Amino acid sequence: MNIDKAITEMQAVLGDRLSTKKSDLDFHGQNEAYYPFTPPDAVAFVQSTQEVSDIVKICAKYDCPITPWGVGTSLEGHALPIKGGVTIDFSQMNKIVEIYNEDLNVRVQPGITREELNAELRTTGLFFPIDPGANATIGGMTATRASGTTAVRYGTMKDNVLALEVVLADGRIIRTGTRAKKSSAGYDLTRLMVGSEGTLGIITEITLALQGQPEATAAAICDFPDVESAVNTVIMAVQMGVPIARIELVDAMMIRAINNYSKLDMVETPHLFMEFHGSEAGVGEQSETMKSITGEFGGGAFQWSTKVEERNRLWAARHNAYPAARGLKPGFTGLTTDICVPISQLAKAIGDSEKDIADSGLLGPILGHVGDGNYHATLLVDPNDPDMIATAKGVAHRMAERALAVGGTVTGEHGVGIGKMKYMAAEHGDGWSVMADIKRALDPQNILNPGKMVQVN
Amino acid sequence: MNIDKAITEMQAVLGDRLSTKKSDLDFHGQNEAYYPFTPPDAVAFVQSTQEVSDIVKICAKYDCPITPWGVGTSLEGHALPIKGGVTIDFSQMNKIVEIYNEDLNVRVQPGITREELNAELRTTGLFFPIDPGANATIGGMTATRASGTTAVRYGTMKDNVLALEVVLADGRIIRTGTRAKKSSAGYDLTRLMVGSEGTLGIITEITLALQGQPEATAAAICDFPDVESAVNTVIMAVQMGVPIARIELVDAMMIRAINNYSKLDMVETPHLFMEFHGSEAGVGEQSETMKSITGEFGGGAFQWSTKVEERNRLWAARHNAYPAARGLKPGFTGLTTDICVPISQLAKAIGDSEKDIADSGLLGPILGHVGDGNYHATLLVDPNDPDMIATAKGVAHRMAERALAVGGTVTGEHGVGIGKMKYMAAEHGDGWSVMADIKRALDPQNILNPGKMVQVN
Repeated sequence: MNIDKAITEMQAVLGDRLSTKKSDLDFHGQNEAYYPFTPPDAVAFVQSTQEVSDIVKICAKYDCPITPWGVGTSLEGHALPIKGGVTIDFSQMNKIVEIYNEDLNVRVQPGITREELNAELRTTGLFFPIDPGANATIGGMTATRASGTTAVRYGTMKDNVLALEVVLADGRIIRTGTRAKKSSAGYDLTRLMVGSEGTLGIITEITLALQGQPEATAAAICDFPDVESAVNTVIMAVQMGVPIARIELVDAMMIRAINNYSKLDMVETPHLFMEFHGSEAGVGEQSETMKSITGEFGGGAFQWSTKVEERNRLWAARHNAYPAARGLKPGFTGLTTDICVPISQLAKAIGDSEKDIADSGLLGPILGHVGDGNYHATLLVDPNDPDMIATAKGVAHRMAERALAVGGTVTGEHGVGIGKMKYMAAEHGDGWSVMADIKRALDPQNILNPGKMVQVN
Repeated sequence: MNIDKAITEMQAVLGDRLSTKKSDLDFHGQNEAYYPFTPPDAVAFVQSTQEVSDIVKICAKYDCPITPWGVGTSLEGHALPIKGGVTIDFSQMNKIVEIYNEDLNVRVQPGITREELNAELRTTGLFFPIDPGANATIGGMTATRASGTTAVRYGTMKDNVLALEVVLADGRIIRTGTRAKKSSAGYDLTRLMVGSEGTLGIITEITLALQGQPEATAAAICDFPDVESAVNTVIMAVQMGVPIARIELVDAMMIRAINNYSKLDMVETPHLFMEFHGSEAGVGEQSETMKSITGEFGGGAFQWSTKVEERNRLWAARHNAYPAARGLKPGFTGLTTDICVPISQLAKAIGDSEKDIADSGLLGPILGHVGDGNYHATLLVDPNDPDMIATAKGVAHRMAERALAVGGTVTGEHGVGIGKMKYMAAEHGDGWSVMADIKRALDPQNILNPGKMVQVN
């Protein structure tokens, strides 16, 4: 490894856009979770796929680690350069390459954020539905197989990425997939790259499927006497095939947090936040079905957000749940869990989690993309209290173990990064060593986001 | 390679179920397309995953090629043991392992066919929607990433396989994926195996997502003055997001063939065959929307198949299109193409194909899963006329080249097998060598369905 020589050669390619300024290094050493500050040795602000290829070739020559960076919203430290080296920052590769209106797809550079993309699409009648909450980049969402509130209807990134351009570990540029809706031509390299967290190749262009903007949209909240009633409502809605666009559980403690943070006055019991997309008649039919199901399980009256601004305020409040939760204990930070289980196991999983959190003496409000069996507890901890952090990690660990025991996964959508490495053997068994075999085949020098996802040494 | 020693050891494990009888070898040397008869050296009628693992370990010891066999309906010679060795026949591993009603999923052995599965599911209120026409096994459909008439609504096998059990090339047994609806835990080994055609591992169990049986189902056909009008109807329906369950184009010549074969009396112009799934109100709304779109493009009145038997007869006629087409020229065989293009390119692609077929003096009726941009021409050839076969291959080749030129794929659903190997470099570029890298990593001895999918030597 000779990072200094790599930096010198990269500077010859990028000039000023290869930075070793402390402010740039510091910015790319941060993360949104509790992982330690880890700055890179240099940051490359690339502007083209060819530049990425040139940088990778130089890094391959000097065994210099490479970590891609979107906008830094990941929650498991994916973009922290834990072995040093260069961070490739995609903020200057943030353009739409081409919109294909008739085909309902679009080619974009990795640095565009989902909100930027949807702003550009507004006049086309199309939109990109995946919404992880954070205004993440499309590159980052692809690399972590993101999903979020709308996955119950529209799927995750694996279902919405049609094709990719990828720079391999030796600098070669490949294209995976096509713009056709389906193909049986060979191994599914597209879906191998989706969720690979920068460890198999560097994504430099993404072709996304788009949806037509729905003719009608309606959102409502509904309160429940307890979490189980809310979850049972969701299970029945899923079983009946209601094509609901969003159905989010927010537990009583999180309602309190959101009320405080977003100045709302919801009754402090568990709620479902729902959104319906379709024709006017379709939205009406879905709403009636959901009213009938919620009634069966003791849900209250629907409170509708009929205007766009009201609806945006509702989802903004939902998306601000993390800072809202932290507001319950000023000065505390949040340790976020990301369990996903078969939906039949969901009510028990959440109930067990709530009990464990309470027994541990922690505050840990819960919300979830319950239509997918995915939920998050935000375990509030004093960053200066190692005992409390250890207690929270114990709770998170037991949640993960219980998820695996019922056929679930330790991460529904946040990804592996640094935080979930320790569960990979338990979740995948020998499959984890197959992942390492693939990593060795595609990145024999282990320069692409090294130290993440697999054990290759 | 020492196949004889491998056979002796496999016989010790399986007894009579390791067959070298000529009738068994001959049966597994056939295919539904025009590829040459290629029998294996032995056939293993396995009954458990452990037996598959034992067989693979013996084959690894002696470098003996292994080819999995479902029910032999593939159209590109996937299951032909072109390097000899043992064929693993899954007909005795054809059970449902467990149905999870609440979770809408099911675990099955690979040898169960889709019709057997749906017969077993009938009383549960659930069904498995993917319908490639042939009564293929779920293992074969998974291995070839099958799709068919319902993919426009329900997706392909890649969208409906949640998890797999796989025997690796060294005999280890792994599980990929979970029964949870989504996961971000590592490389997507499930979707790497889906469509890998037995070259990366041997699938021994499949967890499938299921759908609720729709409350209402309706089917109709509609005639059009020309193919372009029918295709433009489909493009608009897709753009408007009509959740149609099936929308199939059948061209005028294929209508004639189906009329003859299935004793029907449709007017001999291009048709769309449609099916609607949903609530009563939803099906009504979809039908009205489709009537309005078809009217706009010159479509005739809808002819409804309201009774279940009528509907079954309609789709049976559609599924029998291949023998129907061959009936146009008794004694001829069919060379089937499988182009898939972005939907904006579909009308031109089909028009160019029709012209090329006519100019070549061939008969080649066309039908297609047009909602996905996927269509098939059945080029009728005299198997004893090498010039005619060469002419047909020329037409198929130009169809493939035009598909690639507009961002499509040479195979929408049939897979690579023997027939599409020659296009892999053109479709994937350096991505094809990445596929070979993965193959070498997972099957270093090249014993799993060798000679298919990638070039490793």
